[in-house]
Amino acid sequence: MQPGDTELVTVPAPEPADGEALVRTTYVGMDAAARTWLDDQPGYLPPVQLGEVIRAAGIGEVVASRCDAYSVGDVVTTLTGFQEYTIVRDDVFTTPVPGPGDQVDQRAVMSVYGPTGATAYFGMMGIGRPQPGETVVVSAAGGATGSVAGQIAKIAGARVVGIAGGPHKCRAVVEDFGFDACIDYREGGLPAALKLHCPRGVNVYFDNVGGPILDAVLGRLAPKARVVLCGVISSYLTGDHPGPANYVNLLAKTAVMQGFNALDEWGRFDEAFAALRRWDQEGLLVHREHILDGIESCVDALNGLFTGANIGKTLVRLSGS
Amino acid sequence: MQPGDTELVTVPAPEPADGEALVRTTYVGMDAAARTWLDDQPGYLPPVQLGEVIRAAGIGEVVASRCDAYSVGDVVTTLTGFQEYTIVRDDVFTTPVPGPGDQVDQRAVMSVYGPTGATAYFGMMGIGRPQPGETVVVSAAGGATGSVAGQIAKIAGARVVGIAGGPHKCRAVVEDFGFDACIDYREGGLPAALKLHCPRGVNVYFDNVGGPILDAVLGRLAPKARVVLCGVISSYLTGDHPGPANYVNLLAKTAVMQGFNALDEWGRFDEAFAALRRWDQEGLLVHREHILDGIESCVDALNGLFTGANIGKTLVRLSGS
Repeated sequence: MQPGDTELVTVPAPEPADGEALVRTTYVGMDAAARTWLDDQPGYLPPVQLGEVIRAAGIGEVVASRCDAYSVGDVVTTLTGFQEYTIVRDDVFTTPVPGPGDQVDQRAVMSVYGPTGATAYFGMMGIGRPQPGETVVVSAAGGATGSVAGQIAKIAGARVVGIAGGPHKCRAVVEDFGFDACIDYREGGLPAALKLHCPRGVNVYFDNVGGPILDAVLGRLAPKARVVLCGVISSYLTGDHPGPANYVNLLAKTAVMQGFNALDEWGRFDEAFAALRRWDQEGLLVHREHILDGIESCVDALNGLFTGANIGKTLVRLSGS
Repeated sequence: MQPGDTELVTVPAPEPADGEALVRTTYVGMDAAARTWLDDQPGYLPPVQLGEVIRAAGIGEVVASRCDAYSVGDVVTTLTGFQEYTIVRDDVFTTPVPGPGDQVDQRAVMSVYGPTGATAYFGMMGIGRPQPGETVVVSAAGGATGSVAGQIAKIAGARVVGIAGGPHKCRAVVEDFGFDACIDYREGGLPAALKLHCPRGVNVYFDNVGGPILDAVLGRLAPKARVVLCGVISSYLTGDHPGPANYVNLLAKTAVMQGFNALDEWGRFDEAFAALRRWDQEGLLVHREHILDGIESCVDALNGLFTGANIGKTLVRLSGS
């Protein structure tokens, strides 16, 4: 987004009506998908209209309540949007976080125990289904979803190769997130690098980016490979989607490529969070957050996803410490 | 293939050794995939080398036997190749056809009760899984596999729209094979035609062609759609595979695109044939064969698949009546 595309508006915090509660946002999360909701095209959620608040998932505390579902002091995840206060109702998008508010690690909820972690979990375990000894490739491996998805594949016993941009990020993918290797796509020569790091082919590819990177990995599939389509970050900004010519390899390798949206698994999020929490407690799961401060940082934070500024989950802190 | 790419050679029929039998080919079948085996690229079968017989599936009668598996007079399907006599062993590629030889409908075996029918069956029932009321699109709908695949979807209760080239073929798809509609891709405007014939989107697409037709159908997918990749006939000749830019719709619609090879289901072919035979006996299954005569017709017959000359299964008759 360019300067001038958005406007920062200060208005009085709304009063909750009957059946509503008021939430003060602690952290608003940055998702690449949020950029697609700003396009005037039908998707899995309706487009954000001009003048509306930019839609985003966040976490906050209930500061006033006139509904049975939430009490003052509750921590909830909801679609806060890019705003400091939000009116919520008892709906599927608003979920109380268990535990006393002052003991909840709200950053961890945003990076692992929320849609991001659920996306990594269901995409990798439900569609990728890595087996011990298989080779798994994850793009945007330093990002919020990719870093968790790769670690899940490691836990499942696979060899995991990340793809990320720049030596700094590639180092974090290997040293912090424990991937076996990470390819810096900015160096070029991706097909040769994939051949080097995946000598027996790619059994599972968790794709966050689309474009030439998807095409290169499709060219390296192992028989019966599973390609999980989680995002197309390479084209969200430009609207330009080069088709992957190597899709024909899906036929040659009798492989499958499946689009995927964690929201379809909404009713099973608890299963994902239980597994992720167990791995976290066992020290098998590293999560990192990239924190910016203040409502005025939101647009830059979202833009940063597309320039690769972040490692881990990008959050903007709007209140709290 | 151009004149001069192949050579017609006359040699004495081979003598079967111990453990072998000699088969006289009745019909050799034309499969678009046979063209890919002539490329010097690894695939699911090794490339045919210069000087070797062109690989093809056929049917014939055992005329001499020195093995226990086959007796003189047996009808067998096997990889006859483009030749009048073939040596066979007791292997997975050679399958006796039950019943007295003089009562076997060898054309029907080649068009329905062989790999062609099994491909249509497992691709449609195993991957496409059409539900009553869903919309199914089949490309190369007048061809051997497409015509059977579409009829299977009809039997499953779906609305079936074919895509084929030319008014003559489109008429056959509707009038002979019973599809609900058929789009003539040669008329252009495929996206608009798909919108007209598939107002609620495409639930299942059985793709035999790839290229711009695949791309157009991907642009029209319904939520949770299943795309069965059965062939890429549009690119077998040129080696040019334009990538389908609309693959991103797999993500937007949480759809799946799966490559598929009936040979993987070899052990379950009997299940397919039993179902196909039952539908055939109930009058629900129409099969047509396009017959050419003589070994010298084989190359033209194979080339004809790529110019759309055939309706139904193309066979070259090498003996019998």
